Amino acid sequence: SVNPDLASERQTASFSVEKLTALLDGGVEQTRIRRAVVDAIESDPVFSRENQYFQTQNERYEAAVKKAVHLQKKMHEMGWTENGPEYKYIYRALSGDVAFLLHRVFMRSISMLGSDKQIAKWIPLATQHKLIGSYAQTELGHGTYLQGLETTAVFDTATQEFILNTPKISAMKWWPGDMGRSATHTVVFAQLYVHGKCYGIHPFIVQIRSLQDHSLCPGVTAGDIGPKMNFEHIDNGYLLLKNVRIPRENMLSKFCEVRPDGTYVRQGSQKINYFTMTSVRISLIADEVLTPLMKACTIAIRYSVVRRQSKLKPGEQEAKILDYQTQQEKVLPQLAAAYAFHFTNDYLQELFNRGYREIQRKNFDMLPELHALSSGFKAMITQHCTAGVEICLRACGGHGYSLLSGLPSLYTKILASCIYEGENTILLLQTARFLIKCFMAVSAGQPVPPSVTYLAAVKPRKCPAKNKLDFLSPDIYTEAYQHVAVRLISSTAAKLQDLIQSGVKKHDAWNQCTVQLVQAAKAHCHYIAVKNFAETVEKLETKAGIQKIMKHLCDLFALHGIFSNTGAFLHDGYTSAAQMDMVTASYLDLLAVVRKDAVPLVDAFDFTDKSLNSALGSYDGQAYQRLYEWAQKSPTNQMSPAYERYLKPLLHNTLSKL
Amino acid sequence: SVNPDLASERQTASFSVEKLTALLDGGVEQTRIRRAVVDAIESDPVFSRENQYFQTQNERYEAAVKKAVHLQKKMHEMGWTENGPEYKYIYRALSGDVAFLLHRVFMRSISMLGSDKQIAKWIPLATQHKLIGSYAQTELGHGTYLQGLETTAVFDTATQEFILNTPKISAMKWWPGDMGRSATHTVVFAQLYVHGKCYGIHPFIVQIRSLQDHSLCPGVTAGDIGPKMNFEHIDNGYLLLKNVRIPRENMLSKFCEVRPDGTYVRQGSQKINYFTMTSVRISLIADEVLTPLMKACTIAIRYSVVRRQSKLKPGEQEAKILDYQTQQEKVLPQLAAAYAFHFTNDYLQELFNRGYREIQRKNFDMLPELHALSSGFKAMITQHCTAGVEICLRACGGHGYSLLSGLPSLYTKILASCIYEGENTILLLQTARFLIKCFMAVSAGQPVPPSVTYLAAVKPRKCPAKNKLDFLSPDIYTEAYQHVAVRLISSTAAKLQDLIQSGVKKHDAWNQCTVQLVQAAKAHCHYIAVKNFAETVEKLETKAGIQKIMKHLCDLFALHGIFSNTGAFLHDGYTSAAQMDMVTASYLDLLAVVRKDAVPLVDAFDFTDKSLNSALGSYDGQAYQRLYEWAQKSPTNQMSPAYERYLKPLLHNTLSKL
Repeated sequence: SVNPDLASERQTASFSVEKLTALLDGGVEQTRIRRAVVDAIESDPVFSRENQYFQTQNERYEAAVKKAVHLQKKMHEMGWTENGPEYKYIYRALSGDVAFLLHRVFMRSISMLGSDKQIAKWIPLATQHKLIGSYAQTELGHGTYLQGLETTAVFDTATQEFILNTPKISAMKWWPGDMGRSATHTVVFAQLYVHGKCYGIHPFIVQIRSLQDHSLCPGVTAGDIGPKMNFEHIDNGYLLLKNVRIPRENMLSKFCEVRPDGTYVRQGSQKINYFTMTSVRISLIADEVLTPLMKACTIAIRYSVVRRQSKLKPGEQEAKILDYQTQQEKVLPQLAAAYAFHFTNDYLQELFNRGYREIQRKNFDMLPELHALSSGFKAMITQHCTAGVEICLRACGGHGYSLLSGLPSLYTKILASCIYEGENTILLLQTARFLIKCFMAVSAGQPVPPSVTYLAAVKPRKCPAKNKLDFLSPDIYTEAYQHVAVRLISSTAAKLQDLIQSGVKKHDAWNQCTVQLVQAAKAHCHYIAVKNFAETVEKLETKAGIQKIMKHLCDLFALHGIFSNTGAFLHDGYTSAAQMDMVTASYLDLLAVVRKDAVPLVDAFDFTDKSLNSALGSYDGQAYQRLYEWAQKSPTNQMSPAYERYLKPLLHNTLSKL
Repeated sequence: SVNPDLASERQTASFSVEKLTALLDGGVEQTRIRRAVVDAIESDPVFSRENQYFQTQNERYEAAVKKAVHLQKKMHEMGWTENGPEYKYIYRALSGDVAFLLHRVFMRSISMLGSDKQIAKWIPLATQHKLIGSYAQTELGHGTYLQGLETTAVFDTATQEFILNTPKISAMKWWPGDMGRSATHTVVFAQLYVHGKCYGIHPFIVQIRSLQDHSLCPGVTAGDIGPKMNFEHIDNGYLLLKNVRIPRENMLSKFCEVRPDGTYVRQGSQKINYFTMTSVRISLIADEVLTPLMKACTIAIRYSVVRRQSKLKPGEQEAKILDYQTQQEKVLPQLAAAYAFHFTNDYLQELFNRGYREIQRKNFDMLPELHALSSGFKAMITQHCTAGVEICLRACGGHGYSLLSGLPSLYTKILASCIYEGENTILLLQTARFLIKCFMAVSAGQPVPPSVTYLAAVKPRKCPAKNKLDFLSPDIYTEAYQHVAVRLISSTAAKLQDLIQSGVKKHDAWNQCTVQLVQAAKAHCHYIAVKNFAETVEKLETKAGIQKIMKHLCDLFALHGIFSNTGAFLHDGYTSAAQMDMVTASYLDLLAVVRKDAVPLVDAFDFTDKSLNSALGSYDGQAYQRLYEWAQKSPTNQMSPAYERYLKPLLHNTLSKL
């Protein structure tokens, strides 16, 4: 039976939940396929995550390996293929709780970086799981700055082998997934040396464990890097190589080759490599970042209507906590952000597909823009969504702090997305570098990519809003965001030039501007996100109430951004103090409007109870019942040796009843 | 051997580290005592936390019980008493990793709420550990709003007993520490009923487990609430009571008593109760909030000088990451905040002691101010420090995400401080209520407590700063903070009055202002913190470089607050855009200044390697070495059954070497 406090929220939905779900999925047919995958996965006990919060790191790892092996069988059974329409839903249905994800990266890197001969040899072996692959790039002392990697691969002409070494501790490979305990092979990135000359970083296929008994190969030291905030199911590993010899053919050689006599040959364009990072950064947004935020919103909002606390009006029942303005101000902007970034992701996907088509035609013109947008949005979205999950967690008070709420593990997992695939600050600085370059180009009257043409547009000097309702006009707030982005980019460009002109060296000048460059890059991405949300809403069908509620969310997303960062808008007087008070009024009004549809809006995400795995966020809203049931299953409710060992002697056992 | 990249940082300290340590401790003698306690605790293997990151919740609990029992012995051995000067350092030296902390709360509540007779009976039993106590207030459905508690205690005149019941699931006691597995007794808060009439919430001593065999008493259901984000060592518990009878004498009756015939008698003043919450909120700041932030700063800053990444200047060695402006902007403001709040804590302690003396003399006048300040600062400091620890964690990139860095557990623990002992938003609203009341009083020409007299002062209309150096003047920035606090308090008071005058009911009007009331309360606390830091610096001795470096940190704390919240200062034109650019310039300059002393400033916190328990933050800076050593000890590097069970069959075992 559904908790009546939750049921009542669903009766007043202003729109069709099912229609909104289909919109999010990209069509009714997609919804059907997704649900079929979810059903198949969730009805199979091997894939259960029921005991997840009670398991040790070792148990999590073992379960993930078991699931990965079982998944092969399942896919065969269900007729799912890697190219089929179901494939993209499988990982999400498993909540990523499965091993051998790096095996896919291993395969992808061979496909992208290997010669046809190498592909023909290794891909079938990997596909049939005759080996387990990994991808060893990051080192203990080296992450984002790839040129700094220290592992060496020296070509030995005599034996036609590369000799791989870890020259010092900071050169040890560290973090690669699936490598700590599972992988038999890995792609090692190392500095290539031929005849004493260094040719920079290249990829090499290295066997690290025996295929007979899984023991480590000679010269190889490897293991698991130990406990982490999350990803207990993944055996992130370390790898130390001592004179490990591999055949010449194991250097992935689509772009570069070492001939038998040691001649180094570079061939083809490496620009496509650049494109890979872009692809990874965009592809992680949906599953690794948006899904956790959507889950957190679902949990926090459902809980906020079944939790009652204090009295809003004297003499009445205690109020649902979602009726408090402060609670609305915590969770509803996160909900708006989840929708906003869902549409940003659509925008990026489209841009990416366009770029991909161009690249197929050997046109690399879109690459700088794609790189800048994918870097900036990866940073911005991971940052916002991580903060959003944390806010949802805190908004559930003490119960949010229990692992059983599901929120802590969503948080500790999404947090990693701020660091992996490019640390956020570094990514924002890459976006900033692109923006400064484009700003200079625009100033010199040169053409720039579409997403930055706004840098050239002439702006009104003041925001034209006259009353608080004007701030519900997308033109008004989009212009404001645009103005701020232009101001921050242009003022930082000016500072940079001033410093250089005053004699500061270029690199120092850049460093002295980086805090502001980061702000400028964020402002650019925020502007694009708001503009894209507003344009998306414009195009939505007006029936079934969808457009109307999406408009509210778009307004909320935009005004929350202004309300939380008023200084950027007030700084040069573009927005006046009186206008800022209108923003505040409109923003607070909107909270009360969106609050009415909050539960239907999270229902539309269509998460099953099993996928939420949360005692607080279930569809029926029986939060307390579930917390109690789950707690009873905790291993901490089994007999502890502590009583006999410590408590009994302490209590002296002298009294029976005081 | 100390990593030379760290050693070089210490050679250029602008001040005496030892003198600063003594200042933080409150004198040379205090430093000596603290170090003696730390030595004694850390040299005892029972108190080791070496394996902490590898242990399960059950193992953590058992170790904590063992430590608690051993601590009794240790104290006796060392001649430490609960009233001695060493006592306050013990908990910190243990990093709080010990059981029976609620036993002390149990004792305190009896001392405060019990009659002399009750104190005489129970305190000796508790002191001698003939029972283990707990404190059962929070329920599954009820936290901060105590009046909403649902547990009942019905007086039965016939048997002279109270009959305790948990009428429904939301009334179940939930979260009390030490209750899940250890406690034999607990203080239960329940609605008192006599002859069918409800007299509200009262405290009752209830035995829940047998002293013979530790089995649950008749009618009692209790257990552990399961996994949490942290506090694995504590058995937070649940408790369900079914017709549990306790003697009339077990109602704690210093203030209220039920006579044998059922007459309810209220006696004495309960105002002191109010004071207890204040005391708890202030006392948690040092150990639960400041220490974790100081540890996080120590780890992140030491790591930031041994980690090198990318080149700042072409042709040079890779740069220490602390030389990047963006890294400085992450960690250095947290360092400044740690010092700022250390002095805020001194201020609160002093205020509290003064209040306590007054109360002894039956003067309760200081209570409202004390309550407002302790609530607001508890919220503000826990919020800032939690965010600060998270920033430190992220600033260490991937390695910060490893439990071995020590940062994840600091974060997951400090996060709880935002929720317990009063959820932060609710506390800020209590402060806001006080501020609004005082603002009204001031407007009516009535006297107000010292901390809010500024509400009456006439303000200059514009910030007088003329250049960026003016913003290094405490008068300039303190005035700015004061101005913002007054503006937010007065404008919210005006909105509240407008709403009420326009016919909105008082409670609705309050709710519609709460987002802004929270902002006002934060601004008030921020102002007091800045003002207090500036006044403290003023009074410091000028020798040994202490005052100078503290002045830099004070400036940094103040300017970071403005830089991060420019809108509040720009809003009504108090600060102009040109002035805000000066703030930014001064702020960024300061980062480079404080960066030079960053390592000595964290060294002054004087944490031992054992107390940091961090592979990244050790005094010798051998971060990579330590990460590798620790990872090798992880249980995940033991043989896993996954190979035989899943990997071997998967790999078919057909190939030996590819």
